[in-house]
Amino acid sequence: MNENINKIKMTGSITMLKNRLTELLNIEYPIIQAPMAGGVTTSKLVASVSNAGGLGMVGAGYMTPNQMRTQIRELKQLTPNPFGINLFVPNEFEVKEDEIRTSNQLMNGFRDELGLPRKETMEIPNSNSVYATFKEQIKVVVEEKVPICTFTFGIPPKEMIEEIKKQNILLMGTATTLKEAVANEKAGMDIIVVQGSEAGGHRGNFMEEDQESLIGLMSLIPQVVDHVGVPVVAAGGIMDGRGLMASICLGAKGVQMGTAFLTCMESGAHPVHKEAILNAEGDHTVLTRAFSGKWARGIKNRFISEMQAQQDKLPSFPVQNSLTQDIRKKSGEQNNPEFMSLWSGQSAVLAKNQTVEALIQEIVEEAMRIRMN
Amino acid sequence: MNENINKIKMTGSITMLKNRLTELLNIEYPIIQAPMAGGVTTSKLVASVSNAGGLGMVGAGYMTPNQMRTQIRELKQLTPNPFGINLFVPNEFEVKEDEIRTSNQLMNGFRDELGLPRKETMEIPNSNSVYATFKEQIKVVVEEKVPICTFTFGIPPKEMIEEIKKQNILLMGTATTLKEAVANEKAGMDIIVVQGSEAGGHRGNFMEEDQESLIGLMSLIPQVVDHVGVPVVAAGGIMDGRGLMASICLGAKGVQMGTAFLTCMESGAHPVHKEAILNAEGDHTVLTRAFSGKWARGIKNRFISEMQAQQDKLPSFPVQNSLTQDIRKKSGEQNNPEFMSLWSGQSAVLAKNQTVEALIQEIVEEAMRIRMN
Repeated sequence: MNENINKIKMTGSITMLKNRLTELLNIEYPIIQAPMAGGVTTSKLVASVSNAGGLGMVGAGYMTPNQMRTQIRELKQLTPNPFGINLFVPNEFEVKEDEIRTSNQLMNGFRDELGLPRKETMEIPNSNSVYATFKEQIKVVVEEKVPICTFTFGIPPKEMIEEIKKQNILLMGTATTLKEAVANEKAGMDIIVVQGSEAGGHRGNFMEEDQESLIGLMSLIPQVVDHVGVPVVAAGGIMDGRGLMASICLGAKGVQMGTAFLTCMESGAHPVHKEAILNAEGDHTVLTRAFSGKWARGIKNRFISEMQAQQDKLPSFPVQNSLTQDIRKKSGEQNNPEFMSLWSGQSAVLAKNQTVEALIQEIVEEAMRIRMN
Repeated sequence: MNENINKIKMTGSITMLKNRLTELLNIEYPIIQAPMAGGVTTSKLVASVSNAGGLGMVGAGYMTPNQMRTQIRELKQLTPNPFGINLFVPNEFEVKEDEIRTSNQLMNGFRDELGLPRKETMEIPNSNSVYATFKEQIKVVVEEKVPICTFTFGIPPKEMIEEIKKQNILLMGTATTLKEAVANEKAGMDIIVVQGSEAGGHRGNFMEEDQESLIGLMSLIPQVVDHVGVPVVAAGGIMDGRGLMASICLGAKGVQMGTAFLTCMESGAHPVHKEAILNAEGDHTVLTRAFSGKWARGIKNRFISEMQAQQDKLPSFPVQNSLTQDIRKKSGEQNNPEFMSLWSGQSAVLAKNQTVEALIQEIVEEAMRIRMN
């Protein structure tokens, strides 16, 4: 009898991880690897996730169209399964000479310490040229027929969405509030990722103020699923089977995990970055806009602390991001965690260094154990 | 056969809501009504929760020892079931004349608008007298043998904890970080409430900085349950059976809900406060220290917006709380939501106006449905 109960329950568990999301994405488990930009999402990481039954994603926000095309073609060789690509929707910005000068003055202190040449001004691509690159990136997605294309920082224009949809490419948008989720659905997104305040890296908010867009997943998931019809994916602080099952209880159809994959063996994150996360005791992340001009969550280090009082004076994204590029790079070359952007979600303390396959198996098995309790 | 499966599953559901927490507290369902101070937790509300199988709690932080004793005795008449009482652990503070003057200058604008007399100075109880009151409050708890005593803003001294424990009174502490949770267990707390960043009202942090203590429940619950042995209760943004089941998946043994009970018919919250929550579209709460000197989450209104840039200049808790008392009171008398503290968690959009019994039944039934899916 007990054996029967267990069989009934076990079947229920496996079935439970199958849903509209896994069907749409054509994947085994509702587990998506978050598109972390800046070198983390190597083809090895992305392909390992897709090969293990999840959805691997390329964080292409900072990539050139050519780099994108090369990686997409590489991935097609490495996995027969679907994978996705993420792009940043450009927001208009101004390049102001005085802001660049002020920021450079602040940055020169760090440059001195790292042995970098001081800078007074800097050539920075303007809003129009960033938008032109975005259009080129979209062209690559369409030409290469990448199975899934996802967006952060906003919603692309209508014509662009229509053009991509013609290729049967699935679209996934990012929302940090109910209002942003509703706007994403209205624009034609097939899936919505809700990013909770727990999430590491850049905040994806684009319609609401910073404080009002810092909503924890326990609040955000149920309020969004009550108001949109497309499948919702939960992102932020999720590391294991507990987080997957909790998200499903709240109404999400799956999870998107960044930090959990960042510390995996296959990830391209800097070893110093991985170590900072793996050594975390509790949550020591904070929000900062000092690295890029956009609010992002990372482990507190000297750069964040020393810039805290000054960050309102800095230029907006992506201008400030260009201004800190040499500092972040040099800090990495010197294996110095103090001036790198150590992006991390609030659950760093749960991170492990293991293979992607082991992580995904662990999540699925833990989810089943919870289901059977 | 299908019927059998359902029976097996249903029994599992009911059993699942029974655990170490319900056993310790001697309650039917692992649902605790959050101790909201300032008139919300009338005896009617508290008794209704305890009578419906949850744990009702008196928010006694601002009450005199005599008021406490009266309400405790009243509750003993209204319910045969356990209930709890919550106290604020006083933190040392200084009463600075110049800070009071600066704050009064800012407050006088609001006083003018509300038709209140202007103030220049104010008699405010000092740190020693606040601590003396706390000792008196503890004396009442001990003498009246209140079944459960819970704390916010810190951990009471060792001798005090020992004195209370001698009466077999259960102790419950509040933590916003892993470090605070570990400290609570070490101090002898029988149960730990973890307050996520989603929570309405005052932040309970007492060891870590503001930003680092704003952790979402999706992160906070698993990291705490991995490191403490006593039962953990989740608080913040939980409104229904989905939140209860998600918390249990993450490792909590139960939930503490504030906003969900605040809008119930039996709650003593001001009708304008209830309405502001019930009319919320999405999350429009923000953190402010302008009302009390301590960070707290509430619905954005004119008082919060107009004080946003000035809030760093204001005195700390409880000094600023005394300074805004006349403003909050008068605003309530005029049914004007703009100058009241409209405390709310981030899930206001899920709030309903119903009886406590209906709310608790709905939560339990929804939890069972989720379990059976």
